[in-house]
Parts: sequence; C-alpha cells; structure tokens
Amino acid sequence: MLKIFQQVGRDLFTAGLNNSHSGNLSARLGDRLVITRRGSMLAHLEEEDLIETGLEKDDVNTPLASTEIGVHRAIYLKTPALAVVHAHPPHAVALSLLGDEIVPVDAEGLYLLPRVPVLSPRQAIASKELEETLPEVLREYRAAVVRGHGSFAAGRTLEEAYKWTASLQHSCRILCIARSLGRGPGSSK
Amino acid sequence: MLKIFQQVGRDLFTAGLNNSHSGNLSARLGDRLVITRRGSMLAHLEEEDLIETGLEKDDVNTPLASTEIGVHRAIYLKTPALAVVHAHPPHAVALSLLGDEIVPVDAEGLYLLPRVPVLSPRQAIASKELEETLPEVLREYRAAVVRGHGSFAAGRTLEEAYKWTASLQHSCRILCIARSLGRGPGSSK
Amino acid sequence: MLKIFQQVGRDLFTAGLNNSHSGNLSARLGDRLVITRRGSMLAHLEEEDLIETGLEKDDVNTPLASTEIGVHRAIYLKTPALAVVHAHPPHAVALSLLGDEIVPVDAEGLYLLPRVPVLSPRQAIASKELEETLPEVLREYRAAVVRGHGSFAAGRTLEEAYKWTASLQHSCRILCIARSLGRGPGSSK
Amino acid sequence: MLKIFQQVGRDLFTAGLNNSHSGNLSARLGDRLVITRRGSMLAHLEEEDLIETGLEKDDVNTPLASTEIGVHRAIYLKTPALAVVHAHPPHAVALSLLGDEIVPVDAEGLYLLPRVPVLSPRQAIASKELEETLPEVLREYRAAVVRGHGSFAAGRTLEEAYKWTASLQHSCRILCIARSLGRGPGSSK
Repeated sequence: MLKIFQQVGRDLFTAGLNNSHSGNLSARLGDRLVITRRGSMLAHLEEEDLIETGLEKDDVNTPLASTEIGVHRAIYLKTPALAVVHAHPPHAVALSLLGDEIVPVDAEGLYLLPRVPVLSPRQAIASKELEETLPEVLREYRAAVVRGHGSFAAGRTLEEAYKWTASLQHSCRILCIARSLGRGPGSSK
Repeated sequence: MLKIFQQVGRDLFTAGLNNSHSGNLSARLGDRLVITRRGSMLAHLEEEDLIETGLEKDDVNTPLASTEIGVHRAIYLKTPALAVVHAHPPHAVALSLLGDEIVPVDAEGLYLLPRVPVLSPRQAIASKELEETLPEVLREYRAAVVRGHGSFAAGRTLEEAYKWTASLQHSCRILCIARSLGRGPGSSK
Repeated sequence: MLKIFQQVGRDLFTAGLNNSHSGNLSARLGDRLVITRRGSMLAHLEEEDLIETGLEKDDVNTPLASTEIGVHRAIYLKTPALAVVHAHPPHAVALSLLGDEIVPVDAEGLYLLPRVPVLSPRQAIASKELEETLPEVLREYRAAVVRGHGSFAAGRTLEEAYKWTASLQHSCRILCIARSLGRGPGSSK
Repeated sequence: MLKIFQQVGRDLFTAGLNNSHSGNLSARLGDRLVITRRGSMLAHLEEEDLIETGLEKDDVNTPLASTEIGVHRAIYLKTPALAVVHAHPPHAVALSLLGDEIVPVDAEGLYLLPRVPVLSPRQAIASKELEETLPEVLREYRAAVVRGHGSFAAGRTLEEAYKWTASLQHSCRILCIARSLGRGPGSSK
C-alpha cells in the first residue's frame, strides 16, 4: 500500500496539483482507514506518514492524521468509496471562484467528469459543513471542488481517485487556456 | 522495447503532455502491434502494460489493449507508420477548439510541422470515424489534433512519433503565450 | 542536515520556484549558520555546497557563502527564526510589481499567509537596506516578497520555511489564473 | 564532462526550456569542440551523444554533430566563450516575436541580463547569417534570442551558459505573467 501512496503523492507534486505540504490521501480498509499524516509532504511519503485509525472510533493514532480526516471519514461512511484524494489543483481552484460548477470542454473531461460541482462551505479547511454536504455530492459525482480551496475525488482505489483528480486539473487547465484565447464557454454561470 | 516505451511515457507526463491515465503508445511489428494497456499510467509502464496483439486479427490479448487500438490499427494498415503516439497536450487541445488547423509561429514548429490539421469527428474517443479519416491525414502530415481531445502522431520509431508530439505542444504553447501578449496570428480561422 | 537541504533545493527547482542558480537556503545552529554556497545550484546540492560560518563573526568560510548571507544573518539576529528560504517564485515576483502587499484568494493561502508584504528596497540583491527592514517584517509575517526579486520566508525548520514559500507561490499562481479569467481582487492597490 | 552535459540537458528539459529533441550543448577544448549529437534528446544524453570534432577542420565525426555546429564553431572562433547552450525557452521565444530586444523587469534578470538582443536572420535554423551576426552579439551580451527560434548563451563553462539560459527564461516568464496582469513594460518596441 505504501508504494501506491508514494507514487500518487509524488505524481501530484510533479504535475503541480499540490505544493509542498498540501493535499491528503486515504484508503478504506473495512472499518479502518489509512490516511496521510498531518503535515506530511505528499511528494516524500515514508512508512511513518501513513496513519491507520478507526473509521468511526478515535484511537491513539487519530491525532496524527491529516486535519481533513473528518471529511475523509464522512465520505467513507456515506458513500461506497474506498479511496479519497484531496488536492489543490491550481486551475480548478481558480475556476471554482467563478461559478457553481465546472464543465469541461475537452473530450476526456466531458467523458469522465461531465460536470464538477463547486461547494461553498462557510469554512473551507477541515469543515464540519463539508462532512455533511460533500458525501452527498460524491455519491453522484466522481469529484467536486471546494471553492477557493481544492478538489476531493472518491474512487474504488487510490489510483482511480487520483485519475479523477488529474483529469479534473487537465480539463480545467485546457478551459483556462481556451478562455485566455477568447473562447468563452466551459465554466458555468 | 520496454525501455523506450517507459522513457517516452515518463517524459510525456513530466512535460505535462499527458495526465495520470491519458494517452497511449504503440509500435508495429510486422503483422503484430504492441500497444499500452487499457487504463495504464504512461509515467509508470511495466512489462505487463505492453500488450501484443494482431494488427488485424483479435486474440486473447486484444481486450487488454488501449481503447484507442482501433485508431492505431487503422493508421498502421493505411500508412507506412511503424509507431504511433496519442497524447493530450493541453495547449494543442485548447487551440484545436478554435480552428481547423494549427499553424506554428516558431521556427522549429514551422520546420517540423508547418501545418497541423484539426479533425472533428462526431465522437472523439475510440472513434470509428477517426479510423477512416485520421490515416488519410497522417499519410500527409506528421501529426494531427482531434478537436478537444488530443494529438496523434505517426513515425518510423516511437521516438520519432514522440518528437512530433513534443514539438506540437511546444509550438502551441508558444502560440498561446504570443497570443496572450497580443500577437494575433498563428492558428488559422 | 544535508538531506533536507537537498530535498528542499530539489523540490524548489522541480516546482519552478527557482531556476538553475537562483535562491538560497540557511539554517541557524546557535551562534553559527549553515548556508548554501555562492553560485550553487539548489537542485544539485552536495556536501561542499553547505557553508558553515559565524552568525556575527566572519571566518575563512564566510566569503564562500551566498551573497545574501547579510540578509540571512540579520533575520537570525533580529527574529526567532531558525531557518530561511529565499526563492524566486515567478508568480509572486510578477504580482510584487503591482502592489505593496499580496492577498491570497485561496483558502490555504488565506489561512497560512493572509497578507504578504512587498518590500521595495532601492537595491534588491544583497541589500543592506533589507538587512534593516526585512527582519522587522518577518517578526510579524511568515513570508515577504522583495519587489521584482523574490521571496524570503522564515521558519522554525527548513521544511517550514519551504512550506511558506511553496504556499506563497501556489496562492500567487491561483491569483494570476483567476485574474486572467477576469476575477479582479486578490493583490491590493 | 559527460556528467555536466547530462545534468544541464536534463534540467533544461525538466524546466521546460527544451522539448524532447530541441536544443544543443557544446564545450570548447582548445582547437576541438564537444557537441551534442544531431537528433539527440538532451534529457537522456549518453556517452555516444557527445561528438568530438575539430573547431575548424571537419573529420569523420563532424556529420554526427548537431545541425547547429556551424553557429557553435563561429562563436568559439570569434569570442572567448568556452561553452555554448542553445535552447528553446518558450516565453523567451514568444517575446522575441514582439521586439528587437528583451528587457527584464525582475532584479535577477536586470543584474545578469540587463538587455537581451533579438536577432532576425532570414533563416533561423542552422543559419549561415547567424554565424556572422551572433558571435558579434555574444562578445557583448551573455545571451541572445533568435526570433521565433530559441536562445544562444555563451559562457566560460557549460554551467555558466546554462545559467544565462535559465535566467533568461525565468525573466521572460515573469515578464509574460506581469503583462497578462496588465503591467505593460519590459520588452521593448
């Protein structure tokens, strides 16, 4: 399991979807979850950066987990997801400032993520409100963006959740380039 | 053969021409072809990600191949190409939304790819229509862009097809920067 | 200590926050400091690129240190910082040309760096004036930008100072993308 | 010597200053020069990609050298340079389409490259005209840009020529970002 966490973490950094300390990854194991350590660098994950704790019950490891653990847990408890990727893809974050959804213009985006909802909780980071609203959205959509904050994607595997995240940023980058060239549509009102 | 697939796959990711799971590579071996596995990550190709199957005849491996295998096969059957690179270069995809061809403004682009046709099939991904139209185009041009989807480049070697792909994206990036600076021409009506 | 210098130096280059020879890193060790060598490449630091010298007193090693050593020393002498990262993050530098402060629009930036002062010394590189003004600012702020030059961030560890730097560039990149999409605010008057 | 060629070639690719097959590097050794092989990939240089041949006299190796060997030779014969880096930095190439010189707005650029001439030979690639005009310019300037083509930088070492190249692209990138934010100056009429 360490290998895929390392690979996804490294690739998210290389592709610019996270900076040094942003983002977090998790996978569900029955009534347990493995999540990246609070303050870890996704590009350099080591064994001790993977924190295993309860899906519902806190234990001695829980305080070591990412500050976003509440949102990860809520997603597992309310959706069939087995893995979650939270990242800060810059073009997706920028587009999230402009509307309530992101609609790709490229074929891959339209196929994989035909519509990406933008959520606007009062508090963006480690939000209790998101623990309520995000799982609802991720039952219907593969990925969502928290306005001005970052993306959450849920999948059956970490690789799959990473795929939705990477595809989201790629579509958003194409959208931003197309807009800068004077092509208007793509991100909704 | 694995080494050059790995190198090209890795470089396409590092340079941002593909995201985690996009793109596919193939090479022709007589009446066989080797193509990347459906759902593989080009940045992390392993031995088992190279699928060998028939150029015309399906076999037990065919279902494991990239969903774009129909287009790769059509290119080999109707052109002298020995290798094909399909990628999602973001600036090329963005420019493809704007016109029927892309015309580089930089010297390297003008020399290697003086005109890059943009195709607009009704269906962009795994398109039967592309199996008809793309080989025609690639008999005359080194690379083409499928509108809003990605590039296809054909060469005598995988390295060569990669070269046309990388040069296409580089030229398109320069075109987009130049346009953002207020220099208009480069991509035609 | 070499390992963290190498990792931070490499990541700053990979993420585009420094070019080949720009930037410098240091850490305080009591009344000594370790700083990168004058003219070293942060992406390729070796043992001999870490120069140890006095915090106040010059010695035989001092002339080997980064030309910015005066600013690093002043920060250590006048603030509780134990590590300093100087980088040239391109979007932060571009925004610094436009105002006296940078105000992030993304949640991470607002949380970590709610306001980033822009300093405008008459001389930007190895500036005596900065030795006076920058420590004052870094007692109150985690990072600051020297107009048209680069960023300085101070932390308890090199990793922490790198975190402020990476977050600054990430916020500034989002700001620039948002502005290119027609969203105005973010960097002040 | 191989190690520094590999490092510079790799870094130029990683930083996006060259694409797969663009650019070439050389170093002078008395009346000989070592130059990258025609068609080599700078990100993956091997022993056999370094071609040694005469500075003035052709030999059996000369046809293996980069097509730009004429320009490299002319620079060595007419300037004190001991190393030359030719690259295709995208923001520098885009800016070269707009004026006869590039004037950085950032402190590092103003210090290292206060003015970068743009040359406009009738033929950009492997240009006989450049063999005449470029050495003149590189006696006075550390780097120059051939309009719509790429940069040439000359130094006492390969590392130094790479430094001017990387700094040029960094300054040009900042210039382009600043312009997109509505700050006008930086590249002259």
